[in-house]
Amino acid sequence: MKTRFVLINTSHAGNVGAAARAMKTMGFDDLVLVAPRWANVLRREETIQRASGALDVLNNARIVATLDEALDGVSHLCATAMTPRDFGPPTAAPRAHFEMLLKSELLRHEALSQEAQNPSNPSGDTPADPCAAPQAGVAFLFGSERFGMTNEDVYRCHVALSIPTNPGFGSLNLGAAIQVIAYEWRQALGGFAVQDATPPRTLADAAQVAGMLSHWEQALTSIGFLDPAAPKKLMPRLNQLFNRAQLSPEEIHILRGVAKAMIETAQAKR
Amino acid sequence: MKTRFVLINTSHAGNVGAAARAMKTMGFDDLVLVAPRWANVLRREETIQRASGALDVLNNARIVATLDEALDGVSHLCATAMTPRDFGPPTAAPRAHFEMLLKSELLRHEALSQEAQNPSNPSGDTPADPCAAPQAGVAFLFGSERFGMTNEDVYRCHVALSIPTNPGFGSLNLGAAIQVIAYEWRQALGGFAVQDATPPRTLADAAQVAGMLSHWEQALTSIGFLDPAAPKKLMPRLNQLFNRAQLSPEEIHILRGVAKAMIETAQAKR
Repeated sequence: MKTRFVLINTSHAGNVGAAARAMKTMGFDDLVLVAPRWANVLRREETIQRASGALDVLNNARIVATLDEALDGVSHLCATAMTPRDFGPPTAAPRAHFEMLLKSELLRHEALSQEAQNPSNPSGDTPADPCAAPQAGVAFLFGSERFGMTNEDVYRCHVALSIPTNPGFGSLNLGAAIQVIAYEWRQALGGFAVQDATPPRTLADAAQVAGMLSHWEQALTSIGFLDPAAPKKLMPRLNQLFNRAQLSPEEIHILRGVAKAMIETAQAKR
Repeated sequence: MKTRFVLINTSHAGNVGAAARAMKTMGFDDLVLVAPRWANVLRREETIQRASGALDVLNNARIVATLDEALDGVSHLCATAMTPRDFGPPTAAPRAHFEMLLKSELLRHEALSQEAQNPSNPSGDTPADPCAAPQAGVAFLFGSERFGMTNEDVYRCHVALSIPTNPGFGSLNLGAAIQVIAYEWRQALGGFAVQDATPPRTLADAAQVAGMLSHWEQALTSIGFLDPAAPKKLMPRLNQLFNRAQLSPEEIHILRGVAKAMIETAQAKR
């Protein structure tokens, strides 16, 4: 779904850079600034520094004078607001709202495609043209660092998103708030895959573990730690420990090496 | 669960401030810095500025020389790592890992309390003393801004958390990464409630909506927009529109006022 981030009256150039970086990490690139404090904010040194490589998002960004000019092509407006209002859209946590939003979008698309397949239009009225359906798009609106969003801007929105925070300290930095919203929205859209930072592990099978344990039983007896006449629960305990550890074949190999060295040492001493 | 954030070799004072702020917004306060670049980082102006009121977290924070000194009382170590390693703990996305971690903690606690209730200990072994069970605690480790975590530090961890990001641009700012991890962990722990920023809406019942619609039918006829002889589907359409809008009693009142004014104007013109 088309996604736009709209920053209204942003004061700190660094936050514009942080916004671009946060958006890009989550795969979004449509940034619109409404009446920022600095007209040249997209080229300021602090902006570029904090964007840390998300220069394409900055180059793509538009600066406009009014909120109206920022909202072409988006149909669902999400305010981000902390301060209570006498009136306005319902408040929701991002995760719950995004889930609901995507479900209702899905239902709408299904209904549209059914109508397209069955154009007989039993209602007797002009049929809805699926191609004329507005491109659904969502915009996330962020107010200024010091004052947040104006009532006037909040009133236009479909929902006031509120990141659930510490009741005694709810104030996220603007860049941090954009990072959380962008992350949650990306997760809701299906997310990115996590790339394994380490090679995936294969697991040893139960026979390999049992073989290794019997090797250890022999080794622990040889070094005098296990008394075969009174074994207590030592081996079952080690079995449990190694079960929890989810050993790989390589680790079985290492542990067998240790057992072997114990036995050899014990034999050499005799 | 006891939660600690450990920042290793952090270079930028601003990021330490951002970390404190991000932690506090999610209700965490245990921050340990391992060998930061600046010995006085907790008192630097940039730190205090970016902490934006989370001074108690800074005042609480400890500076230590080695990772070892940072890990007392925590049993589960989460690395945060982007760069691939030849070897190390398994990689996981935060949301999935936290869910699993809390489930296994729950099972462990249930088992402990069952053992406490039933001290007969059929295994014939020394019983586990539930009070002696280590206080489970989790630490989130963050490496330096430029080089991330060393292999040596990653090897000690139980998991390498990876925030799912744009495959072409995965680099979150340190403060932003801490914000996302703190947010996800808080959500996993049950989250904070979202405070309504606007008063909750009551909904008009179907009888009120039907009464308003019949008022409008009369009004639209009076102004010549609706032809009672050929009403087409105008009223059902308006009915659908107002159903989607989920009207409140107050809005019914407003819409009835509009209908009344239409009728009065039409009558005055006659």
